[in-house]
Amino acid sequence: MGIVLGANQYGKAETRVVRVVRDGPRHDLRDLNVSTCLAGDLAATHLTGDNANILPTDSQKNTVYAFAKRHGVDQIEDFALLLARHFVTSQPAITRARVDIEEYAWQRLGPHSFQRAGGEVRTASVTVDGDGTEVVSGLTGLVLLNSTDSEFAGFVQDPYTTLPPTKDRILATAVDAHWRHGDDRAADGTGWADSYAAVRAALLAGFVETYSRSLQQTLYAMGERVLREVAGIIEVRLSLPNKHHLLVDLAPFGLDNPGEVFVATDRPYGLIEGTVRRDDAPAADGAR
Amino acid sequence: MGIVLGANQYGKAETRVVRVVRDGPRHDLRDLNVSTCLAGDLAATHLTGDNANILPTDSQKNTVYAFAKRHGVDQIEDFALLLARHFVTSQPAITRARVDIEEYAWQRLGPHSFQRAGGEVRTASVTVDGDGTEVVSGLTGLVLLNSTDSEFAGFVQDPYTTLPPTKDRILATAVDAHWRHGDDRAADGTGWADSYAAVRAALLAGFVETYSRSLQQTLYAMGERVLREVAGIIEVRLSLPNKHHLLVDLAPFGLDNPGEVFVATDRPYGLIEGTVRRDDAPAADGAR
Amino acid sequence: MGIVLGANQYGKAETRVVRVVRDGPRHDLRDLNVSTCLAGDLAATHLTGDNANILPTDSQKNTVYAFAKRHGVDQIEDFALLLARHFVTSQPAITRARVDIEEYAWQRLGPHSFQRAGGEVRTASVTVDGDGTEVVSGLTGLVLLNSTDSEFAGFVQDPYTTLPPTKDRILATAVDAHWRHGDDRAADGTGWADSYAAVRAALLAGFVETYSRSLQQTLYAMGERVLREVAGIIEVRLSLPNKHHLLVDLAPFGLDNPGEVFVATDRPYGLIEGTVRRDDAPAADGAR
Amino acid sequence: MGIVLGANQYGKAETRVVRVVRDGPRHDLRDLNVSTCLAGDLAATHLTGDNANILPTDSQKNTVYAFAKRHGVDQIEDFALLLARHFVTSQPAITRARVDIEEYAWQRLGPHSFQRAGGEVRTASVTVDGDGTEVVSGLTGLVLLNSTDSEFAGFVQDPYTTLPPTKDRILATAVDAHWRHGDDRAADGTGWADSYAAVRAALLAGFVETYSRSLQQTLYAMGERVLREVAGIIEVRLSLPNKHHLLVDLAPFGLDNPGEVFVATDRPYGLIEGTVRRDDAPAADGAR
Repeated sequence: MGIVLGANQYGKAETRVVRVVRDGPRHDLRDLNVSTCLAGDLAATHLTGDNANILPTDSQKNTVYAFAKRHGVDQIEDFALLLARHFVTSQPAITRARVDIEEYAWQRLGPHSFQRAGGEVRTASVTVDGDGTEVVSGLTGLVLLNSTDSEFAGFVQDPYTTLPPTKDRILATAVDAHWRHGDDRAADGTGWADSYAAVRAALLAGFVETYSRSLQQTLYAMGERVLREVAGIIEVRLSLPNKHHLLVDLAPFGLDNPGEVFVATDRPYGLIEGTVRRDDAPAADGAR
Repeated sequence: MGIVLGANQYGKAETRVVRVVRDGPRHDLRDLNVSTCLAGDLAATHLTGDNANILPTDSQKNTVYAFAKRHGVDQIEDFALLLARHFVTSQPAITRARVDIEEYAWQRLGPHSFQRAGGEVRTASVTVDGDGTEVVSGLTGLVLLNSTDSEFAGFVQDPYTTLPPTKDRILATAVDAHWRHGDDRAADGTGWADSYAAVRAALLAGFVETYSRSLQQTLYAMGERVLREVAGIIEVRLSLPNKHHLLVDLAPFGLDNPGEVFVATDRPYGLIEGTVRRDDAPAADGAR
Repeated sequence: MGIVLGANQYGKAETRVVRVVRDGPRHDLRDLNVSTCLAGDLAATHLTGDNANILPTDSQKNTVYAFAKRHGVDQIEDFALLLARHFVTSQPAITRARVDIEEYAWQRLGPHSFQRAGGEVRTASVTVDGDGTEVVSGLTGLVLLNSTDSEFAGFVQDPYTTLPPTKDRILATAVDAHWRHGDDRAADGTGWADSYAAVRAALLAGFVETYSRSLQQTLYAMGERVLREVAGIIEVRLSLPNKHHLLVDLAPFGLDNPGEVFVATDRPYGLIEGTVRRDDAPAADGAR
Repeated sequence: MGIVLGANQYGKAETRVVRVVRDGPRHDLRDLNVSTCLAGDLAATHLTGDNANILPTDSQKNTVYAFAKRHGVDQIEDFALLLARHFVTSQPAITRARVDIEEYAWQRLGPHSFQRAGGEVRTASVTVDGDGTEVVSGLTGLVLLNSTDSEFAGFVQDPYTTLPPTKDRILATAVDAHWRHGDDRAADGTGWADSYAAVRAALLAGFVETYSRSLQQTLYAMGERVLREVAGIIEVRLSLPNKHHLLVDLAPFGLDNPGEVFVATDRPYGLIEGTVRRDDAPAADGAR
């Protein structure tokens, strides 16, 4: 029996870069959190501390800054592709690069003034390796709530089941969605920005317009809607916490409570995870 | 020399209540985090464990829920006033009640569908005691950035000063603002909602329209603008972290960087705190 | 009616400095988070942007680093005193300096190897101004639990009270304690380290050895014990969240639950705040 | 082209349970955060909202509480096995159950008094499905630092490399380690507690005793040491952030800085991830 090095990778996490475009008095702004991650022939550094194949994570960080200047930052999918391809093609020992980007949105207040938009964060994850290129776009932190048109009934009754079935409850979640593209370009010439807007709209419509018998049903409706409405997407992965809102018992105070006063709870929470895909979608790269 | 009990108070922190109004198919939603805090003749519980004067924090929480049903929730200042007055008038041993509320905003997506608005949180702090009533409204988490029209120069040069003066920098902050009202009603019949909107607009305008030679100057401009534009406000307290954005040195890569690529840093940060007030404002209650 | 500048201050928050002492092969380590805050004649920068009286927060940060090298770091109270006095004496416009330090503890694993100790954080807050010097030591994040010898009964029954009295509950809290010294030196020649250890032991003993009828009673017992056992302390301020542990109702599953299975809840929580002091203690500076 | 449901699972996340053992005046305490996750024939709930196969996440939570009472909680691996097997064997539609547990340690202060130990959190992840049972033990949040015996040199010099090689730096990380067992019992009759202690000791020794030329080398040394010293472990996965400590340039203040004063930075950070395994280890279940 021997001991061996298994899967491994390394990189620089959370490089925070703000790119200002100052073409005239009206500025533009991109605010990113970039993580890079490289894999390849890295046995030597693990086994002997020989770093001949190691591009320092500090250099990876510098590359992010230099590329932000030289190439600018428009769509994060493109910026991630540029970085990932650079690492794989310029480093002989590196066979796979993954770049993850979070983008924080800002609203314009004036020619050079901005307010950070709260709410969801847009994401892109690009993996480049010998098998090709995988582009996954996404969003996190989109908190949604339906105050009715949600029920939960007909479920298993086991000896530990005390939950009463309900025909009317609050359904609330913080959407974490990631969708895989069939290509390394956004489909139909629309570009990543349009694609993002279309997916986001489909997710919202799926949540808002579904009469929900389970959060799973809502999840599937959201994913299906994306695939039906947005060309070029081949798979949608959704992770939906069920942010429970419990009806308060006001009877001790002589008050009824027909769906009006709720406790918003933190923990525990349900967690519903699922993938909706085209039946001919190739398997995901698996790096994620 | 003896040992004595000094200032003390107790309450229930962070009662999370969501109030749905279901008058017909179009629902409305209020999402609050309520903290209550009582003071008065509480020596016995400290000294002997005699709880005869103690309204349990659990009862305080129940009161929040019951009042949300019975009285509804419209403006958080009013809801806080209602609760604070209730505790002081109904509990003989309680001489001061303070109620702090955070309100999380939601955007409408449909008749009963909502998306949580990120960004700032609206706050209200009400203190009721023998000296009267103090109402402080506020907001936190409003992140603002000017990409130019900010300089910092002419400062003290001591032996530890290495910072070069700059005529053009990013100025960014997360506004934490609290403003005290002269009365327990919003002035001029406009109501708390209008007052809040007016203060928020004045803060934004103060930030956006000030050519800044220091974050202190911007702070004062923001506070002054509120007092000048919004009736009924007698004092504005501002706490403004200077969220430093450092220009990246790209010279090693053969690139210049005329205000285009910045590192957004987390720590350390400058912290600028100041009060702007009317010269005839009475002293604050001091509970805060 | 005019608009005027009220109370104001500024400084650098959260300068993270790690000081290694390398006298021979056995190293020592101090890990600090330092915040400095200055007040004085700062009207000009607010009103006109004239920074002639402003020592940049960047210079304050540099001072922390330079002093850590030149003077070393032993007890955080001494390091805070050194910094606060430096700012007040070297800056003509500055009339008050406050320095807050958090110290993160590390356990030794070897001559130059350390493991960060979790649990509580030691703190010091020093204020130097024309009225003299105030030293407040403290700790935060010390989580304590008694699984019995805690009851809560005999409290007010108002229309919103549903809590049943209990003769046996879990009492748990995260201690946030700050104690004011009567002088700028730790009493009796013992030094800050011994004083800290003695206060910490008294707080633990007060929590462990008190049969508790309310968390207020426990709070007072903890504070009184500190004042009785540790010379030089004149006031103890305690903020104790009541981290509620709720007994789970297991009856639906045919099980009793005599104080064995609890839900640890996050929110809401009780919050008990109180001061225990010597009756001849001068009033606190009030900057905190 | 059709749209289909892909991989999916659901469960209850973060059920917080505190189990007190009260056999006589000396109590014992276990403090857990339990997450359960089920997979199987769940298409109907996604596609039509038919919940006939759905065991509510509320029932999963109840099971955690009831089992904590009925079976007690000793080693978290055993408690996770008990729960995972229960779900798979009692629910016909469920073909895979995964249970993740975090355990928070408490130190004894008295017969029924405890202080929460900070520092690392112990974890267990158990997956039961048709292929058998996988037990992965782990720890997170163990922060380690070597103040010397760490260098980093001989790395790639690309156009974006500005980092100077160093022969002496601080090496600090927060260990996140997960090790897979070859069986569903801890090897050699030692039990999970002994196995955990032995792995932890091996990780510490690997960190402390390795002269490090890269964090990768340290990672491999830690993993190899576990496999060499602890029977029954077949794979160790390590995720090690490189918590950069940057030497402060004190030259402007006329001070040298021979490895004495450092800035502890938050972001960005290196992230080194790797697996060390026995060469005959079967592939992991892959649910993680």
